[in-house]
Amino acid sequence: MSKFWSPLTASLVPYVPGEQPKDKTYIKLNTNENPYPPSPKAIEAIRNAAGADLRLYPDPTCDELIRKAAAYYGLRPEQVFAGNGSDEILAFAFAAFFDPANKVQFPDITYSFYKVYAKLYGLQAELIPLDERFRIPIDRFRGTGGVVIPNPNAPTAELVPLAQIRELLENNKEQAVIIDEAYIDFGGESAVPLISEYPNLLVVQTLSKSRSLAGLRVGFAFGSEELIDGLNRIKNSFNSYTLDRLALAGAVASFEDEAYFKETTAKVIATRERVSEQVAALGFKLTESKANFVFISHPSIAAERIFRELRGKGVLVRYFNQPRIDGYLRVSIGTDEEMDAFIRALREIVEA
Amino acid sequence: MSKFWSPLTASLVPYVPGEQPKDKTYIKLNTNENPYPPSPKAIEAIRNAAGADLRLYPDPTCDELIRKAAAYYGLRPEQVFAGNGSDEILAFAFAAFFDPANKVQFPDITYSFYKVYAKLYGLQAELIPLDERFRIPIDRFRGTGGVVIPNPNAPTAELVPLAQIRELLENNKEQAVIIDEAYIDFGGESAVPLISEYPNLLVVQTLSKSRSLAGLRVGFAFGSEELIDGLNRIKNSFNSYTLDRLALAGAVASFEDEAYFKETTAKVIATRERVSEQVAALGFKLTESKANFVFISHPSIAAERIFRELRGKGVLVRYFNQPRIDGYLRVSIGTDEEMDAFIRALREIVEA
Repeated sequence: MSKFWSPLTASLVPYVPGEQPKDKTYIKLNTNENPYPPSPKAIEAIRNAAGADLRLYPDPTCDELIRKAAAYYGLRPEQVFAGNGSDEILAFAFAAFFDPANKVQFPDITYSFYKVYAKLYGLQAELIPLDERFRIPIDRFRGTGGVVIPNPNAPTAELVPLAQIRELLENNKEQAVIIDEAYIDFGGESAVPLISEYPNLLVVQTLSKSRSLAGLRVGFAFGSEELIDGLNRIKNSFNSYTLDRLALAGAVASFEDEAYFKETTAKVIATRERVSEQVAALGFKLTESKANFVFISHPSIAAERIFRELRGKGVLVRYFNQPRIDGYLRVSIGTDEEMDAFIRALREIVEA
Repeated sequence: MSKFWSPLTASLVPYVPGEQPKDKTYIKLNTNENPYPPSPKAIEAIRNAAGADLRLYPDPTCDELIRKAAAYYGLRPEQVFAGNGSDEILAFAFAAFFDPANKVQFPDITYSFYKVYAKLYGLQAELIPLDERFRIPIDRFRGTGGVVIPNPNAPTAELVPLAQIRELLENNKEQAVIIDEAYIDFGGESAVPLISEYPNLLVVQTLSKSRSLAGLRVGFAFGSEELIDGLNRIKNSFNSYTLDRLALAGAVASFEDEAYFKETTAKVIATRERVSEQVAALGFKLTESKANFVFISHPSIAAERIFRELRGKGVLVRYFNQPRIDGYLRVSIGTDEEMDAFIRALREIVEA
């Protein structure tokens, strides 16, 4: 505490990201990064952008990138917003569309940053409990202050089918509905095609996961022109230039390598399916994952113990010390070699 | 307007950055960019960072960069904060240290983003008028809600001497005082050495101007550990990873090329002094600039007309259509060749 802090600062409970240990080299299955490098085209574009023009401000309206993403998704540029990672966009969206006078609804077990954003903007949050199988009970989202749903959800990995997203939108026509699709490219069906029907729908995506660019910080929001306008009003009251010239160049190029994108996401999915079977064979139960991670629980060995023992064996996974999910571990899908090492380590722990 | 916007969104008056025209090539003297490219060491470091590791998140605590900047300025790492440009840091600082219950003070003629931040966070602003010579009347800053002063000020280019900054701090010990030093390296004396004496002092700097990295988006704040803690609480409630891997790499390297930094800033200063004399010889009056731009006014030709005619001749400068300064133009210092072209164009307009 400091007497120079605003009351807001004193009230916050900041988000804690997954650890990025610097003490030794781990098999890092704890932050849902893609095990494959970004497209060589993206890397080349970044190297080409690293030159004298860095003395100049980047394009504050990200025109080229936004045109590119719009064409890719079959949208108009006015329906696209680009930001410094999807986290920044979610922060802007909470400010742009949610009102302290009403309650914003999101699942009780979900991306833990949502609660943090709500606190930052003085919003009331209504947490809707997942059902006993960790599915999102769509029909319980009928509030007056907006909705945020990640699809697939994290850390549970479960997907909400598009028909249910449509039901959610039908039930919530008077306030913004945010679908956070950070993991959608690993087997889910995106809600982007519903944008033309629902002016209150904002779909948020990122290049961090399926395009292997977590280190570049680029995210998107797709929605009606009025929602994108709202995001731009917040952004332009905060920071004119949120994306640097290198991020813009790399992001544009990443959309120009569809073959690479399809190949690497297919590999992640194939590995996930294989690992899911192996983990189940070791006695674990799993949710049905459509993401680049699995959510696993052992019937008799405590998750926290498995987490610690895996760490001792050089494998980092994510353990959440919170009610309902403290029996589970979230394990990102790595390369086949990394997952073989993970399965070996897990077997040693289970069979000990 | 949209029914999906929050009351906040509807109330905002976003910042408008200097134009980045795409219609043709101009001599661009309108956004205070450095005319010289970044250090070759920074460019090389960025190219080296453009590789497979981009699949991984950047270091959320920017440890290496913060250690580097701390060593450079003779501070401890706990006294340094890094952000996505100094604009982002200023936005965080307004949230972290200013309270809607009190009035934050800043000059009436200054960086126009301050008013926008105040609006974004629901703060009351008290605008302290510059004196008739556009100097900041330091003794009038004695509020209860915090102070923001750019030094040198923009767009006026005038420097407040360090003795007066100390006076300001003596007069405002109970609230945060932000000194925005975006232009300090072009002849000013930084307030960083006062940090150890004043726990309420936050000094904000950027790599955009003196280090030719506007396209990379890296800024710093320097202050007591409690102020830096406050900034981190806001940042970690907003976006864990604000600096991408390329920005981190380039920023670290830019501190490793002191010779280049000194050479390019000296060139900008020398050109500024020469151009100031030439502009004065054409009948203009100027403020005393310690920045990488000059603020000029002609006694009989309207600034808006000169702005338009310069544009027609392929030279972009900045005109502010607002009371007290609508007779002035802000002209960034370019290369000697660019400034020769500017002086030629200006002479044609004056002598027409």
